Amino acid sequence: MTRSNWSLPETEVVQRIHERLDAAGTDVLATIVDVEGNAYRRPGAKMLLDDAGEGVGSITAGCLEDDLLAAAESVRERGRPELVTYDLMEDDEDVWGLGVGCNGIIDVLLEPLTETYRPAVEAFADGRNVAVLTVLEGADGPLGRGDRAYYHPKEGRLATPDGEPATDWPAALSGPAADLAERGRADVVELESDGELEVFIDGLAAPSELVVFGTGHDVGPVTELAAKNDFRVTVVGFRGGVDLADRFPDADETITTSPAAVDDELDLDDRTYAVVMTHNFVDDRLTVEQLLESPVPYIGLMGPRERFEEMLEAFEDEGRSFEEGELSPLYTPIGLDLGGGSPYQIAHSIVAEMLAVSNDRTPRHLKRREGHIHDRVTVDSKEGAPSQ
Amino acid sequence: MTRSNWSLPETEVVQRIHERLDAAGTDVLATIVDVEGNAYRRPGAKMLLDDAGEGVGSITAGCLEDDLLAAAESVRERGRPELVTYDLMEDDEDVWGLGVGCNGIIDVLLEPLTETYRPAVEAFADGRNVAVLTVLEGADGPLGRGDRAYYHPKEGRLATPDGEPATDWPAALSGPAADLAERGRADVVELESDGELEVFIDGLAAPSELVVFGTGHDVGPVTELAAKNDFRVTVVGFRGGVDLADRFPDADETITTSPAAVDDELDLDDRTYAVVMTHNFVDDRLTVEQLLESPVPYIGLMGPRERFEEMLEAFEDEGRSFEEGELSPLYTPIGLDLGGGSPYQIAHSIVAEMLAVSNDRTPRHLKRREGHIHDRVTVDSKEGAPSQ
Repeated sequence: MTRSNWSLPETEVVQRIHERLDAAGTDVLATIVDVEGNAYRRPGAKMLLDDAGEGVGSITAGCLEDDLLAAAESVRERGRPELVTYDLMEDDEDVWGLGVGCNGIIDVLLEPLTETYRPAVEAFADGRNVAVLTVLEGADGPLGRGDRAYYHPKEGRLATPDGEPATDWPAALSGPAADLAERGRADVVELESDGELEVFIDGLAAPSELVVFGTGHDVGPVTELAAKNDFRVTVVGFRGGVDLADRFPDADETITTSPAAVDDELDLDDRTYAVVMTHNFVDDRLTVEQLLESPVPYIGLMGPRERFEEMLEAFEDEGRSFEEGELSPLYTPIGLDLGGGSPYQIAHSIVAEMLAVSNDRTPRHLKRREGHIHDRVTVDSKEGAPSQ
Repeated sequence: MTRSNWSLPETEVVQRIHERLDAAGTDVLATIVDVEGNAYRRPGAKMLLDDAGEGVGSITAGCLEDDLLAAAESVRERGRPELVTYDLMEDDEDVWGLGVGCNGIIDVLLEPLTETYRPAVEAFADGRNVAVLTVLEGADGPLGRGDRAYYHPKEGRLATPDGEPATDWPAALSGPAADLAERGRADVVELESDGELEVFIDGLAAPSELVVFGTGHDVGPVTELAAKNDFRVTVVGFRGGVDLADRFPDADETITTSPAAVDDELDLDDRTYAVVMTHNFVDDRLTVEQLLESPVPYIGLMGPRERFEEMLEAFEDEGRSFEEGELSPLYTPIGLDLGGGSPYQIAHSIVAEMLAVSNDRTPRHLKRREGHIHDRVTVDSKEGAPSQ
């Protein structure tokens, strides 16, 4: 199988699941529900195994996927979800040879892809956070393996796939579901209350939005690399006469407007990342001013520090001054200090900086970081509230 | 013009120049020779303006390029090199509107692409460093604008494009040429000695080599993003039966060998970057051992810290121990701490780490860095030796 199937951006994997759902095939969805030890992918990693025997996405580095294709066959035939555990704990070189390359036990949920999954892909497509709740084990309760409910943050309650109140589901699950949906993380929650109940909660956070201001060809590599890293990209131009969609094929959306109308035209919220690279001082200044007055967590401004200092002076001349704190979301010169000078190298450092900010990381060599590479999510089902 | 023309990786720009040279067209080559103030691109940035009026590569963010296409016409017609200066110093909004977006004066050399440039593209294709010396001004000396010589580090002397000793050229140029070729940087050198002589020395360093050990599909994004960032990528597999060239279309080369033969099969020098991600403990261990005994400056090892500690124990059991210093080129867990978990996000953090190491930078937000974003190159022509 080629890169085009195996290593798609996560956003494209969900899009493919959406497409296959519409195609009403007999595909099987594989999702990592639990990991002990260190694994290449985290809980929530997905792989679609379609009825043509092709895989989309990946849940390991590629060495379990063939086994999964086989396991998917039985799930497809029996039409029932299954939990498969791959135990790679033994320090046995044959097992190392399996190739996952870490001491880990991986639990994978395999389930026929059905309409019960539609609310998940539709929320993702609409840019809404959502939590997908799936029963792994349900002893002497009303719920059985594969039963599914959703938590939609705006509604603030558990709902069935049809959107009805999920009366059979313990309300205690709402807390962890809300948190996991917000953070786009996944975890297993066990409840003792009504019989043994083990539920996998898969938080699907809507992709972060990147708005790039500028239409120079240096914008191309930024949109391309940001899209591969799961940002939903909008390119904003301030001059007409250019087919932006044609020039920037990786952009999900292109808008032509005026520098003064940025705040009106765009929905600038706390999930929006902004890169300002019009290379026009006045356009940049008008755009940055509106961004600084919005809740966006990241404003990357292309150009040397001196240029921004001139911009601050221009603000002063207009009687507009900014507190130190107001400027904290502003990153200029833009990007991480990687030393590259080519358009792709500059774009790489910009996207790297956005990833670090969006994941709240201090950019440095991982070998210098203490503790785990991945944040660990633990949910105390007694409390119903997650902690880390 | 689309991304495919404007924003190519630098390596592809040089490849296109090579192809066009073979096509014997009447193309014009534009090269930034000098920059005052901060500009988007550095001296040495190239753009090929072909005889169909198409541009390949970029020397600004895209706003001078149209002017250059016009200027290229006159150079093509007159068949002589020209030096064009774009002055963007005045703080005039019409000039800002030109869009370069920085206080800079940019000198651009426009020259007909001729056979005198062939040694440059051939050295690049062969993976040899080279310095291209081009006369900008030559008063009352034997040399005139556009005259060209080369410095090939292995030969250690100036040569004509035909490979003859460059007897007309001052030997004092060898020092700066050697340094700039090594570092892949460009600068203008002025000599008083034999009449006024102003020479542009364009160092073309051979691209860094990346060797990726592993054939899992997580290798795909690493090869793809590394190639876009101008690494020449070789993928090494330890199991037959897979068409690696087909699986990894972005790799320049693919090799299938045995883990014990890594050092024999590969030319591991101080320009080689290594990423070890076979996900097989024994294969990784054998590979890392040979890499640690080589001069490679970067060994990125996929997997958690605990896994490498087990590897060190395995080395100990074989009576092989490493000093702290011997382990300094080893980076594990691999990559910068950007927090991403998808295959592309992991690959992005790996390539970002390689860029930082290859450019000798401490990865952090540029806004936290003191001083200039770009290293400045200054060559004292009296000494004939460069300093920074």
